[in-house]
Amino acid sequence: MTIRVRYLECDPMGVAHHASYIAWLEMGRTELLRPSGVSYREMEAAGILLAVTKLEVRYQFPARYDDELTLRTWVSGGGRARIDHEYEIVRLGDSSEESVARASSTLACIDPEGRPRALPDWLTPAGGKKKRNRAAAT
Amino acid sequence: MTIRVRYLECDPMGVAHHASYIAWLEMGRTELLRPSGVSYREMEAAGILLAVTKLEVRYQFPARYDDELTLRTWVSGGGRARIDHEYEIVRLGDSSEESVARASSTLACIDPEGRPRALPDWLTPAGGKKKRNRAAAT
Amino acid sequence: MTIRVRYLECDPMGVAHHASYIAWLEMGRTELLRPSGVSYREMEAAGILLAVTKLEVRYQFPARYDDELTLRTWVSGGGRARIDHEYEIVRLGDSSEESVARASSTLACIDPEGRPRALPDWLTPAGGKKKRNRAAAT
Amino acid sequence: MTIRVRYLECDPMGVAHHASYIAWLEMGRTELLRPSGVSYREMEAAGILLAVTKLEVRYQFPARYDDELTLRTWVSGGGRARIDHEYEIVRLGDSSEESVARASSTLACIDPEGRPRALPDWLTPAGGKKKRNRAAAT
Repeated sequence: MTIRVRYLECDPMGVAHHASYIAWLEMGRTELLRPSGVSYREMEAAGILLAVTKLEVRYQFPARYDDELTLRTWVSGGGRARIDHEYEIVRLGDSSEESVARASSTLACIDPEGRPRALPDWLTPAGGKKKRNRAAAT
Repeated sequence: MTIRVRYLECDPMGVAHHASYIAWLEMGRTELLRPSGVSYREMEAAGILLAVTKLEVRYQFPARYDDELTLRTWVSGGGRARIDHEYEIVRLGDSSEESVARASSTLACIDPEGRPRALPDWLTPAGGKKKRNRAAAT
Repeated sequence: MTIRVRYLECDPMGVAHHASYIAWLEMGRTELLRPSGVSYREMEAAGILLAVTKLEVRYQFPARYDDELTLRTWVSGGGRARIDHEYEIVRLGDSSEESVARASSTLACIDPEGRPRALPDWLTPAGGKKKRNRAAAT
Repeated sequence: MTIRVRYLECDPMGVAHHASYIAWLEMGRTELLRPSGVSYREMEAAGILLAVTKLEVRYQFPARYDDELTLRTWVSGGGRARIDHEYEIVRLGDSSEESVARASSTLACIDPEGRPRALPDWLTPAGGKKKRNRAAAT
């Protein structure tokens, strides 16, 4: 998935503000879901919500306004009512790539009243799907 | 109402990004409502939503990170299902004030399905209330 | 230009928050500039800044999370140190399009100290270029 | 430090979006610095920048629009060119408090060209100052 850094996302240091990355990670999860044929919008309409319970980001190299970045998102683990993602944001050069940030998150599956509920079967993480999902969301 | 400019709200020019002001105007409307004894959160829970249909902002002097600004919000007009606000953002100096921005907005009263509905009586703008409202929200 | 509405850009009413549109308009201006061969990032590095001095948005139909919108941006006027844009945000249907919002803005050309300066020649708006620019930025 | 949750900071689930917390943490750091007599704005003007290199947030209980939250920020460690913070966001009740989130961050001290540089002496974390700093920023 390609991200173009918006002017609004940059701060007085001239680089993408560290909070802007959080929005990108969310976009990565949305796009990871899309090829499965069910969008997160449809899940929410069906009463299946995903709430972020943990987030960790390591910023390695600043991103600048108008940079074109590549975001890779994949499922790294999870459980009956929990799903873990990992993320890699890189800037592609002619023959190499530069690591901009690495991140991980945990989402809990809840119902509209905020109570934990089981993930739908098709979302339950399975180790064997990791590589396929990863390719799909790049 | 006092606003402290957040670092995140500033852009690579080192000044508050023009979109940050929109959040401040919304805070001005929230605070204008509070002394009436009904919060916007309660209104929404009761199925009375206010949607912005028009917004106009004139930026006069840049605001910088960590500036303390004063926002004044007042009702400037409206109708059965519509309410107009005006806004003034200033930076207070020792003996004078500097105008940072002026803005106006129109809100439509809608129900949760997005259909227009009448404003509750106590919200219907009345010219005579203008000065009192203005004082309350500064 | 195509915009995918982000989850983060939506509010408790379930629709894109009115401040999110401001970021999209800015992206429209960035993309309008790109085909000219000079990016806004390069302009800024050369000491030519563009500051928004006026903004007007009319919201016509709500945009929802994950909607794919089309943004059209074009130069509508200007002067020696000022440039005006207009914008149209629509949702494309199978055989028709739905208007989501219309907007206009005025930018002032300034130097890094905030003093007005003349626009570079190649940016000076000329009525005859309107149609070509409009096509380029859709 | 008291935070009033803005409408714009909430998402379609009706709760504060997880990215909004990042802005609050930054405000906590700004306020923690203020009593020292040097603002972050002045530091930046003097060429001493602080860049976030690591961020971790655990979301425990959702915050809602118009909630009044209390943010506590304190220095938890650091080094010659690095400073670590911890954060606690709570909702105060009549006789108890509810934990909304816990977070930690690492900042690197850099110069305007992005090269690491030593922290100014007065900013170097010292274990003994922890309690005093914590009180000052609540």
